[in-house]
Amino acid sequence: MLTGDMTDSGARLAHVGIALPDIAAALPFYRDVLGLEPTASETADGATIIGLTLGDVRVELLEPQDPEGPVARFLAKRGPGIHHLCYRVPDLDRALERCRAAGYRLIDAVPRRGAGGRRIAFLHPQATAGILLELTD
Amino acid sequence: MLTGDMTDSGARLAHVGIALPDIAAALPFYRDVLGLEPTASETADGATIIGLTLGDVRVELLEPQDPEGPVARFLAKRGPGIHHLCYRVPDLDRALERCRAAGYRLIDAVPRRGAGGRRIAFLHPQATAGILLELTD
Repeated sequence: MLTGDMTDSGARLAHVGIALPDIAAALPFYRDVLGLEPTASETADGATIIGLTLGDVRVELLEPQDPEGPVARFLAKRGPGIHHLCYRVPDLDRALERCRAAGYRLIDAVPRRGAGGRRIAFLHPQATAGILLELTD
Repeated sequence: MLTGDMTDSGARLAHVGIALPDIAAALPFYRDVLGLEPTASETADGATIIGLTLGDVRVELLEPQDPEGPVARFLAKRGPGIHHLCYRVPDLDRALERCRAAGYRLIDAVPRRGAGGRRIAFLHPQATAGILLELTD
């Protein structure tokens, strides 16, 4: 077994965003194998979003509506895949301060409202070894 | 807010695997912004694995060692990115039964031992709308 860390910074994985062309085609697996029921759909960042709740973590299935939106562009470039991770932090403003202090490039310099009205900010993948990360509180 | 589902199948997100060429270059972000301490490194499937613990979920940073291994092939094809999700299910054998019954293609028809000695089985991305998923118990 790996040794776990002893401290807890309070950071959590809030959700995983999965980009795919057709949510309806993906749902049977989550329902029939994992026993998950989808939430009502929502729209954000030019995509339809369906959530699947696993304890405190959500998987968000993202189907593009706007062909110029970020999810459509991801699909066109990379095909279906895991689009981003969202971390919940105890203090979003302080986390963004730390990013600025460390020189990490931000897509959202100031938090904006995302799905569900949460305050969110995306970091540029350049900051995080090529992975698109979202922070929320 | 999205409405959550009312039932709980017991399925959980166990970990998220992130493929990148250089774990050491990625760690400062996780340490300095999210306050996470990495676990000791481990090797599985031709990759070095460093874990980051966020409550009940782990983020696993995967750096290829074997140039013919699955992580190296992912990196060569897609660049750094989120490689797979691992779901923990209450009954792995039953979940694999359900996959077979539904005709979902399995990479591991029978569970094998993965990182940390856990029983794991990967599904083929064809089964899951292009997303590489691992099941464990």
